[in-house]
Amino acid sequence: MKHNFGAGPCILPKDVFAEASQAVLDFNGTGLSILEISHRSKEFEAVIAEAESLVRELLEVPAGYSILFLQGGASQQFAMVPFNLLPTYGRAAYLDTGTWSSKALKEAKNFGAIDVVASSSDRNYSYIPKSYAVPADAAYLHYTSNNTIFGTEIFDLPQADVPLVSDMSSDIFSRVVNVADHGLIYAGAQKNMGPAGVTLVVVKDELLGKTGRTIPSIFDYQQHAKADSMYNTPPVFSIYVSVLNLRWLKAKGGVSVMEQENIIKARQLYEEIDRNPFFRGTAEVEDRSRMNVTFVMTNPALEEEFLALAKERGMVGLKGHRSVGGFRASIYNALGISSINALTDLMREFEEAHN
Amino acid sequence: MKHNFGAGPCILPKDVFAEASQAVLDFNGTGLSILEISHRSKEFEAVIAEAESLVRELLEVPAGYSILFLQGGASQQFAMVPFNLLPTYGRAAYLDTGTWSSKALKEAKNFGAIDVVASSSDRNYSYIPKSYAVPADAAYLHYTSNNTIFGTEIFDLPQADVPLVSDMSSDIFSRVVNVADHGLIYAGAQKNMGPAGVTLVVVKDELLGKTGRTIPSIFDYQQHAKADSMYNTPPVFSIYVSVLNLRWLKAKGGVSVMEQENIIKARQLYEEIDRNPFFRGTAEVEDRSRMNVTFVMTNPALEEEFLALAKERGMVGLKGHRSVGGFRASIYNALGISSINALTDLMREFEEAHN
Repeated sequence: MKHNFGAGPCILPKDVFAEASQAVLDFNGTGLSILEISHRSKEFEAVIAEAESLVRELLEVPAGYSILFLQGGASQQFAMVPFNLLPTYGRAAYLDTGTWSSKALKEAKNFGAIDVVASSSDRNYSYIPKSYAVPADAAYLHYTSNNTIFGTEIFDLPQADVPLVSDMSSDIFSRVVNVADHGLIYAGAQKNMGPAGVTLVVVKDELLGKTGRTIPSIFDYQQHAKADSMYNTPPVFSIYVSVLNLRWLKAKGGVSVMEQENIIKARQLYEEIDRNPFFRGTAEVEDRSRMNVTFVMTNPALEEEFLALAKERGMVGLKGHRSVGGFRASIYNALGISSINALTDLMREFEEAHN
Repeated sequence: MKHNFGAGPCILPKDVFAEASQAVLDFNGTGLSILEISHRSKEFEAVIAEAESLVRELLEVPAGYSILFLQGGASQQFAMVPFNLLPTYGRAAYLDTGTWSSKALKEAKNFGAIDVVASSSDRNYSYIPKSYAVPADAAYLHYTSNNTIFGTEIFDLPQADVPLVSDMSSDIFSRVVNVADHGLIYAGAQKNMGPAGVTLVVVKDELLGKTGRTIPSIFDYQQHAKADSMYNTPPVFSIYVSVLNLRWLKAKGGVSVMEQENIIKARQLYEEIDRNPFFRGTAEVEDRSRMNVTFVMTNPALEEEFLALAKERGMVGLKGHRSVGGFRASIYNALGISSINALTDLMREFEEAHN
């Protein structure tokens, strides 16, 4: 058995893989593969309608918000957000908490003036800045809710009198979020929503159409909203597998139940990191991510050995990102407590063997 | 058995479905699903390298061209092409042969002046305009090589002294094309390349970086080329299934062998349409598409009956697009001659039953 600690595209439930595999052969008894059905067929229209309805239910999306399934990943949203929300000659505020927020604000500079209200780059993004002022004339404040690379997460909503825009790619569906506090939320699917190839956007309709800018149709949220995410051929399979995964999440009890499990999983791993003298966490304790647990060894010379042992036990994806080094255990929704046990057991065994 | 005549997403070979289904459970014996592997893993790097190499081999792409796997469909290329190739204050030429070329030129107008060199809209796009002048100062001439909706195809390369840009979404890999005659070719995958969710772009490098415009990274071909289509997380599964399909095409003997099969398939169907007094083709004979065969009944009142009979025999996707009416048989690479036989047999039986 494999324990997939990869940062993404990442583990999804085994049952989802089994159902997806079957649908590639025969989708819902149609005699056709999910890969060869028309996106205009009544079968696929039911899939995309269910995708929207599951997102609306699981995230408790209020009225007045559109739910879109787009392509291009979160990186495309780095451009589409300012394209659609930042007025010509306007300004927007960005909170810089890591590689992805840096990229987001860099792309936004193509569309207007950008205020970086705070940055944690001074200490290799190991913490979340807490106090900063957001200009009242900013079109929005953009923040990255979870920093996949650096293992930090924002648990207290940024305070601002302007609409909040959040890249939730790596923690959406992992904890309860109040959508109504946000103007726009986006997320690449490939962590807790589904496979790579589809991007979720939840946007407050009243914010759209106000930039004074002509937006090419394919980059215009209003066009996608009007067409119910079928402005052009959508990524059929990625949306279908997302539906399978969101059904699984709903059957588990939804986001709040998942959040409790994720708290327990993260606590067990961080407790071992803090207890075990061979290991050390890299993020500030209060800002530690529940999705991506970053840690190093107090003696870096032992890291290769530990990784090799982990591999022997079927653990994959544990190597840390080069920006942080050491290890990163991504412990998304579908990763069971047995995988956490396998890792903490190995950490204890390693300690005993080397003491 | 189903005969899938759908216009796209469309039929792919059964063996491709079988292999794709297996990879969703266990990719190449890794113990992991293709849906949960990292796009930075050596396993996926081999997949995307093979995708590029198969495209290069099958289309005989010369040196000096980049091969990109992007997201967003051909519709996103309607904007990305002028974003990247149409200089600020420049102009581009478009040949208008149907719904998709109309959409392409409409989006291009966001980026510069557009000359529509010719249009067949006067006769519901039932033919390909043959004589027109292309302004010498156009940055490029854009044409749609096959018009999926109207059932026409361009067999003689447009004559122009400017770079050719072609949307080949619905006939790429179905016939031999001289890439060197083009500055850029793009194609949504979901006909003859693979499932929906990935878009192929083949672009001559020397045309890039000359617009004088700042392009957001995600829309910049040069960024994608520099990153070997891994600027951000690619649509892993769609690329993988495209590789399976292109391997199948290569094993069949490649594009020229496929072209011969497609000529035979199309000829058999058009011959029956022309012979059978109950049916009538909608496109000019010399411009008839080998991929999308559009036809109506001489007595339209019988169309519902014919469609119902076809459905009884397992034929799906035959209903014509509302812009043309009647029927559209999409006969892409993976559709075997047995499906053509099933359709022409039914047409003959229908004739006999109604005579």
